[in-house]
Amino acid sequence: MTKEKVNGATEEEQQAQSKKALKKQQKEAEKAAKKAEKQAKLAAEQQSADEDDFAKDRYGLSAMVQSQQKLDRALVRVQDLTAEKVDQLIWLRSRVHTSRAKGKQCFLVLRQQQFNVQALVAVGDRASKQMVKFAANITKESIVDVEAMVRKVEQKIESCSQQDVELHIERIFVISQAEPRLPLQLEDAVRPDGEGEEEGRATVNQDTRLDNRVIDLRTTTSQAIFRLQSGVCQLFRDTLTKKGFVEIQTPKIISAASEGGANVFTVSYFKSSAYLAQSPQLYKQMCICADFDKVFCVGPVFRAEDSNTHRHLTEFVGLDIEMAFNYHYHEVIDSITDTMVQIFKGLRDNFQTEIQTVNKQFPSEPFKFLEPTLRLEYTEAVAMLHEAGVEMGDEDDLSTPNEKLLGRLVKEKYDTDFYVLDKYPLAVRPFYTMPDPNNPKYSNSYDMFMRGEEILSGAQRVHDAQLLSERAHHHQIDLEKIKSYIDSFRFGAPPHGGGGIGLERVCMLYLGLHNVRQTSMFPRDPKRLTP
Amino acid sequence: MTKEKVNGATEEEQQAQSKKALKKQQKEAEKAAKKAEKQAKLAAEQQSADEDDFAKDRYGLSAMVQSQQKLDRALVRVQDLTAEKVDQLIWLRSRVHTSRAKGKQCFLVLRQQQFNVQALVAVGDRASKQMVKFAANITKESIVDVEAMVRKVEQKIESCSQQDVELHIERIFVISQAEPRLPLQLEDAVRPDGEGEEEGRATVNQDTRLDNRVIDLRTTTSQAIFRLQSGVCQLFRDTLTKKGFVEIQTPKIISAASEGGANVFTVSYFKSSAYLAQSPQLYKQMCICADFDKVFCVGPVFRAEDSNTHRHLTEFVGLDIEMAFNYHYHEVIDSITDTMVQIFKGLRDNFQTEIQTVNKQFPSEPFKFLEPTLRLEYTEAVAMLHEAGVEMGDEDDLSTPNEKLLGRLVKEKYDTDFYVLDKYPLAVRPFYTMPDPNNPKYSNSYDMFMRGEEILSGAQRVHDAQLLSERAHHHQIDLEKIKSYIDSFRFGAPPHGGGGIGLERVCMLYLGLHNVRQTSMFPRDPKRLTP
Repeated sequence: MTKEKVNGATEEEQQAQSKKALKKQQKEAEKAAKKAEKQAKLAAEQQSADEDDFAKDRYGLSAMVQSQQKLDRALVRVQDLTAEKVDQLIWLRSRVHTSRAKGKQCFLVLRQQQFNVQALVAVGDRASKQMVKFAANITKESIVDVEAMVRKVEQKIESCSQQDVELHIERIFVISQAEPRLPLQLEDAVRPDGEGEEEGRATVNQDTRLDNRVIDLRTTTSQAIFRLQSGVCQLFRDTLTKKGFVEIQTPKIISAASEGGANVFTVSYFKSSAYLAQSPQLYKQMCICADFDKVFCVGPVFRAEDSNTHRHLTEFVGLDIEMAFNYHYHEVIDSITDTMVQIFKGLRDNFQTEIQTVNKQFPSEPFKFLEPTLRLEYTEAVAMLHEAGVEMGDEDDLSTPNEKLLGRLVKEKYDTDFYVLDKYPLAVRPFYTMPDPNNPKYSNSYDMFMRGEEILSGAQRVHDAQLLSERAHHHQIDLEKIKSYIDSFRFGAPPHGGGGIGLERVCMLYLGLHNVRQTSMFPRDPKRLTP
Repeated sequence: MTKEKVNGATEEEQQAQSKKALKKQQKEAEKAAKKAEKQAKLAAEQQSADEDDFAKDRYGLSAMVQSQQKLDRALVRVQDLTAEKVDQLIWLRSRVHTSRAKGKQCFLVLRQQQFNVQALVAVGDRASKQMVKFAANITKESIVDVEAMVRKVEQKIESCSQQDVELHIERIFVISQAEPRLPLQLEDAVRPDGEGEEEGRATVNQDTRLDNRVIDLRTTTSQAIFRLQSGVCQLFRDTLTKKGFVEIQTPKIISAASEGGANVFTVSYFKSSAYLAQSPQLYKQMCICADFDKVFCVGPVFRAEDSNTHRHLTEFVGLDIEMAFNYHYHEVIDSITDTMVQIFKGLRDNFQTEIQTVNKQFPSEPFKFLEPTLRLEYTEAVAMLHEAGVEMGDEDDLSTPNEKLLGRLVKEKYDTDFYVLDKYPLAVRPFYTMPDPNNPKYSNSYDMFMRGEEILSGAQRVHDAQLLSERAHHHQIDLEKIKSYIDSFRFGAPPHGGGGIGLERVCMLYLGLHNVRQTSMFPRDPKRLTP
């Protein structure tokens, strides 16, 4: 049915669509014509200048790199342009970050990721008047190859990452030309929120950023965020691999809604329907029943929640852990908290540049954590909230504002941004949560918090098929639909527990950011599916 | 619409369903009753025996581990039960792999993953007649805690991984009881195909295995396959991280079919529709345009192909690479082939036990590769096939049988199981493939093969928005639907290329297996969505 809906537009709709397409095509053609015109103009200018230009072979638009030849030319990286390279003639490929013509000179800032260097084309032995003009006309964000002499500077260049040298350009060729009107300016996109307003300068709103994500991701802030995110994944996996965990790959298309049926996306699967996994929960548990002992996985999870908040996405990356334990699920908590602590330490020790880069635009306090990690019981937390004037029942779930308040109270009392809240009321947890043996109203389950927001939810799971059936029945879940899951526990299952961590939330909260879209490269929410 | 279809069953259907549900519930209840009866019987037996049983506290069914207490008890691992532990009293948790009563003794084989050890309960000082009987009655695959003395054996125990010692059990408690009828026997599941037939013993067919995957994954073969798979992912990432690549996370729910529209799964997305990404292709390219320079990602990709072959899955794990290059896309080929070679070496050097374990059940020749990797051009391959009597046009795509034949010819001539086929005809490649600058009928694209089957497809991509629009138009792709993709190239884009590797295929072909379902934990194909 869904397929029909997609392809089976009415005739009217089709006409409207083809009109629209036609219009777009015309627009495209106009654009292309304009571009061609501009290029022709540049070429013509160059040609007319060529005759009396001694430097005419030293600059220009390169043919599109189509792998015509294997050039034996070493390119240096901007970050390697230090005092050691002084008086060397080098080749470099980089973006034109800014350019400024000034008399017979043109100053450029050349950029590679988070690094940049000052460069200069000046009329003289190696550059003609026409060459300086050509350089001055190169659009921002274009990619150029330059041959240049590295020169020491008298005074440090404060505005560039490479402060001790500048480049004296002897050849410059455009490898890929950027269109002249950028949808957003990189310098606006890294300006701290307050600063823009005070000085009457622009900042860039989030939708503009996300609509033009390819440009937004080029900023020093974005480069730092996603390099740090790559680090979180690596630290997560390396720590667990050292602890003897095995990485698993779990299916995302599933035949039954894993966690009850609400908030699940439906997929048309050939002549039938299927769902997108809301977590790898059931599969990682099956791996425990299949003797993998300790497993982790990193992958997308899908939630069809119509929530437009700062911390909800419809698709995010789950860092999932599951492990058999011997006698007490606190063995699991200890493994997870130690993993988090290793991540925090790894970020602190190896990603200081990235942290400080993000802090320049989004200032925040350094992230604090304790060793061993603080563990509070739910009842203690409720008592702290009561004491702070909050009215709530002992077995009520925590509201988002109360979670945040609790985070502040914990920070005041214990000076930590990371803690575990243990022994949640049974009623607010999923059916597969192990009840507390000492108090049937509570459960062997826990959440973990960073800066007062939940980043992990976990528990000891029920590993007995009979108790699991009872609990599912109690939650009014159709046992037939989760048969293969329940059957997994019929042939000997070790006691086990685990949890799922939201990658984007960990990055957001570690860096003290305020919107999870900042730490998702191409975020998905009920209103955003592009780019 | 899809939602309605799922929930909107007719009244008749609902009645049929609730009858079915009722029947199932009755069946469940009967099962539970039987189990309770059996447990009561065991308990009763134990109780009646208790009065005159001096060992009555030394065995029994443990209460379900519900984290009642933190036991200060160290458990040893089976693989650590070596001669060094002789004459030590140890605690161990493991599965009962087999048990055999013999007079006043009961022999057990206790198993942990791929390791096992012989154990013995014998009537004497520490064990009563009743205790031996209890041990003999423990169902296969149950999980037990045993306290035992480690004893040296006179003769090596050939049938166990731990050959120098056996365990003399002094206490034994059942932690989790397996149902008595296993859906498949582990020893049948690891029997080589031929052997079963010859000796009139059972082997297990693939559907039975997959229907009962939790049991099938416990075999030494499965444990080895998926530990090796975990290794492939780790080697892939570690190699690329060392080369300066950044890990990215790309969305799986997308607004437009990325590769043309065929074979794509549709998702209902709130009040609209979306698709499941057939590859991270467009997103990893956007990351290159966003200055990440070299990126990789590991994640699910989805193909709605109705192919029921040995090598197609509807969901598999893609190991994806994309990188900017300087002047020639062979820089990309070199990076990818070196990564593959590092994976092959890492497997050969660190996963020899796993390789040999799989070989016991599925014998195959060791995987051969050359350094540097062999690279053939498409025209050379066609010539080799022509010479071998195959009739095909110069610009025809390779059929699967011809791919396999080519693999054999290459193996004969060059003695390698891994090679690159370069310069495919332009017509058989996706619209974003860069045409060959020297011959418009060919392209800067390549496939990589292991044992004659394709594991990677890749190319230099078109990085110029205008040429990309032309190519998309030529392929009759609606430009409007891929607007944000094409726009990514308007603001300066470096020349770049990459490729996507199928994880399950790499594991299958490296190990010389013959069905990709063997290397997918929970495979998905047009006919299988469970477990």
